[in-house]
Amino acid sequence: MKNKISLFLILFLLFSSAVIARSPKNIIILIGDGMGINQVQAAYTQNGGYLNMTNRCPFSGLRQTNSANKYTTDSAAGGTAIACGEKTNNGMVGMSADSIPMNSIIRLATLKGMSTGVISTSSITDATPASFVAHQPVRSMQEEIAEDFLNSDISLFIGGGLKFFEKRKDGRNISKELTDKGYKMAYTLEDVQPVENGKLGVLMAEDGLKPVKERPANFLPDATQMALDLLSKNKKGFILMVEGSQIDWAGHNNDKEWMVNEMLDFDHAVGIALDFAERDGDTLVLITADHETGGVTIANGDYEKKEITVKYNTGGHSASPVPFFSYGSGAELFSGFKDNTASFHIMKKLLKL
Amino acid sequence: MKNKISLFLILFLLFSSAVIARSPKNIIILIGDGMGINQVQAAYTQNGGYLNMTNRCPFSGLRQTNSANKYTTDSAAGGTAIACGEKTNNGMVGMSADSIPMNSIIRLATLKGMSTGVISTSSITDATPASFVAHQPVRSMQEEIAEDFLNSDISLFIGGGLKFFEKRKDGRNISKELTDKGYKMAYTLEDVQPVENGKLGVLMAEDGLKPVKERPANFLPDATQMALDLLSKNKKGFILMVEGSQIDWAGHNNDKEWMVNEMLDFDHAVGIALDFAERDGDTLVLITADHETGGVTIANGDYEKKEITVKYNTGGHSASPVPFFSYGSGAELFSGFKDNTASFHIMKKLLKL
Repeated sequence: MKNKISLFLILFLLFSSAVIARSPKNIIILIGDGMGINQVQAAYTQNGGYLNMTNRCPFSGLRQTNSANKYTTDSAAGGTAIACGEKTNNGMVGMSADSIPMNSIIRLATLKGMSTGVISTSSITDATPASFVAHQPVRSMQEEIAEDFLNSDISLFIGGGLKFFEKRKDGRNISKELTDKGYKMAYTLEDVQPVENGKLGVLMAEDGLKPVKERPANFLPDATQMALDLLSKNKKGFILMVEGSQIDWAGHNNDKEWMVNEMLDFDHAVGIALDFAERDGDTLVLITADHETGGVTIANGDYEKKEITVKYNTGGHSASPVPFFSYGSGAELFSGFKDNTASFHIMKKLLKL
Repeated sequence: MKNKISLFLILFLLFSSAVIARSPKNIIILIGDGMGINQVQAAYTQNGGYLNMTNRCPFSGLRQTNSANKYTTDSAAGGTAIACGEKTNNGMVGMSADSIPMNSIIRLATLKGMSTGVISTSSITDATPASFVAHQPVRSMQEEIAEDFLNSDISLFIGGGLKFFEKRKDGRNISKELTDKGYKMAYTLEDVQPVENGKLGVLMAEDGLKPVKERPANFLPDATQMALDLLSKNKKGFILMVEGSQIDWAGHNNDKEWMVNEMLDFDHAVGIALDFAERDGDTLVLITADHETGGVTIANGDYEKKEITVKYNTGGHSASPVPFFSYGSGAELFSGFKDNTASFHIMKKLLKL
C-alpha cells in the first residue's frame, strides 16, 4: 500500500514538473526602443538572413502597446507597462496613471535579495531605464530620476546621464552620495575595478551616448557581458534590463543606416545574453520593444547583396504591435498576442516575487 | 525486479508523452491573404480590443516571406511555400522553381486516407487555394488549375471560379467531369445536400466572390462550419485550408473599411475553427498570411470609439514579416520567427505524412 502511494506521488510530481513551466533563476530583459517587426526584418536582411533574436529564440509573440491615455505610447508609458505591469499616461515613469508609485519587477527582485541592473545607450535616467528604477510624473525630470537611484538598491547601472547626477541645479552630487552608499562609480567600462560585493554605477556620457559608430566600440555588448559576470555571482539570481535606445532615435530621424547599425549592435548584446543563458541553463531571456518608431515598411531587399529598402511614414511613433522573442525556462509563456503589461505578471509569477 | 522495470517503463512513457508534442488528428489552416500585423491591429482595435486569432491562441510567431526569385512574394509563391514547404518563383503554384510538381500537405494527407478541403472567397482556382491542389507554372492558367482538381482527390472545395470549370475555351465541363468522379457539385451553400460519403464542390460565383458586405452573409464562416461538419466524419482525420482572400484585395485598393470588414469576416471563420478545436480536443488550428498588402502602418486609433487611422505605403505587397497564430496539439512548435516554408515540415512531421 505504502509502495503504491509512493508510486502515485512520484508519478504526480514527475507529471507536474514536466507540465508546469520551470521557473528560471535569472531573467535578462532586452528592450529595443522603437524596434518594430520591420526594424527586425531590415537588420535580419542586411545581416544576410541571421539575427540572434530571430534565429536563436524558439518562441516569439506580439505586444499591443497603447498607454493609459494615448493609443500611441511613448517610451515612458511603454517602459512602465513592461517594468511595472500597469498602463500609465504617456510621460510618466514608474507611476500609475493616478500618480501612485509602483514597484517594478527589478524592485521586487531587489527586495527578495536578487541582484539587479539596468544598462542603456541613452542617459540611464531616460524613460526606459527610469521605468524600472524611478517614480516620477514627468520623464523630463531627469535630476529627480537620478535621485531615485539613491533609494533603488539596484546593484548596477551603466549608461549616460552624468550631468543629471553631478551637474545639477541644486548643487548636489548624486554620484558622491551613491559612493557614500557603497557604490563604486566609474566613467568608462575600462575604469571599473572588479566589484566583488559592492554596487556599481558607470556614467559614460553627459547625456545619451553617441551613435553606435561614434561611441566606444561594442559598448552595449561589453556592458552586458560585464553586468552578467557581476550579477551572476548572486546565488539568489538576478534580473538585468538592457536597452538599445537609439533604434528609436534613428527611427525619429528616418535614418535607415543608423537604425540598422543600432539594431545589429543591440542584437550583438542579445547574443551575449543568449550565450550566457545557454551556458547557465537556468536563465530566461526576453527581447521586446516599447513601441515602433518611424512607421517603417519594407519596400524591397536582397539577402545576398545584404541590401534593404525601407519607407518611413512618420518622424514619431506608430501603434504597430511590437515583436517579442523568448528563450529559456518559461519562455513559452510569453508567446501569443498580448498586452504590453502581460510580461511583468508572468515574470512575477515565475520568480514568485 | 519485474515491478521495478514496469515502474521505469511507466515513468519513461509518462515523461515522454508530457515532453514530446502531441500529434493532432486534424489541422485547420486559415490564411488571411495580405494580412500583416497592422491589418490584425486595425481589426483588433475596430472590434474593441478582441479578435479570435489574437485572444484565443496561446502561441504566435512571425514568418519571413521572400520567394525563390523575389524579396517580395506574390500569393502564388507565398501559398506554395505554406502548402508545399519549398520556395518557388512568384507566379508559380504547387511547383518548385525548376518546374517540378510538389505534393502539398493536403495532397499528402489525401494519400494517407485523411479528408481534405479548401475554401476561398476568391476563385477556388486562384493562387492560394491552387497552391494546395494544383501544379501550374503560371497562376493565371486558371482553366488548367481547374483541371487539376480532377486528379486531386480532394474531399471538398468551396469558393468562386465557376467560369474556369464550366465556361472554358476548350468547351470541357469540369464540373460535369467531377460529378462523374463522384463529386456532388453545387452553386450555393443552401443547395448542398448532406454529403455523407461522396465529395463536394461548391462554385459560388463566376470568378471571385463579391466583397463581404455584398456576398451571401457569413459565407466564409458558414462554409467553414459546413466543411468541418463533413470532414470530421473521417476517423483518420482531416486537413482544411480556409482563405480570407479579400483582405489582400482591400489592401491593393488601400480601402481601410473593406480591409477591416474582410478581417472581421475572416476572424469569424477563425472563431468557428477554434470552437471546433475546443470541442474536439484533437485539432491544431494555424492562422497566418502569405504576405502583407498595402504597407499598412497604424497612425492612430481608439479602442472605446472603435476607430482606427491607417496609412498605406503601396498599392502592392510589402515584405514585412507576417503574423502566425496557433492553437491546439503541437501549437507551440509554430512559434518563433521562421521562414514561410517551415510550417509544412512541422505539419508533415506531426501527422507523420
